[in-house]
Amino acid sequence: MPDPGDLRDVLAYWVRLKRTDKGWSQERLAMECELDRTYVSAVERSRWNVSLSNIERFAQALDVEAWTLLKPPTRPSE
Amino acid sequence: MPDPGDLRDVLAYWVRLKRTDKGWSQERLAMECELDRTYVSAVERSRWNVSLSNIERFAQALDVEAWTLLKPPTRPSE
Repeated sequence: MPDPGDLRDVLAYWVRLKRTDKGWSQERLAMECELDRTYVSAVERSRWNVSLSNIERFAQALDVEAWTLLKPPTRPSE
Repeated sequence: MPDPGDLRDVLAYWVRLKRTDKGWSQERLAMECELDRTYVSAVERSRWNVSLSNIERFAQALDVEAWTLLKPPTRPSE
């Protein structure tokens, strides 16, 4: 689970989860977003200070609303 | 109301609303966020492609969760 106080971590968690839900590789997501594969990989490792325009690209490619990519997940056991 | 499909617009809407709710000037918000006043002004005019680290600063200064700053407001009449 991501650190709920760390937006990079939360975004990384959702991008990876939604991507794998679709059965997509990082290469496929990168192509859908018109971004570089190494950039997608860095985002999924919480390495990148992503800006609004690229959050929008991820959201559109993954068919989710942008704000949901920054909302910390709730633990099922709580 | 902001364009719900435009994240810059949605962020601008919430930053301005939450700032004025606190009775703060742009200068005061800038000081609380350790950002420049002209940057805060540009964000409130939807001019800036804000990144995660500065979304976090706004959220902390305004006492809200970061994701709420990107969620399009719902119209009261709906």
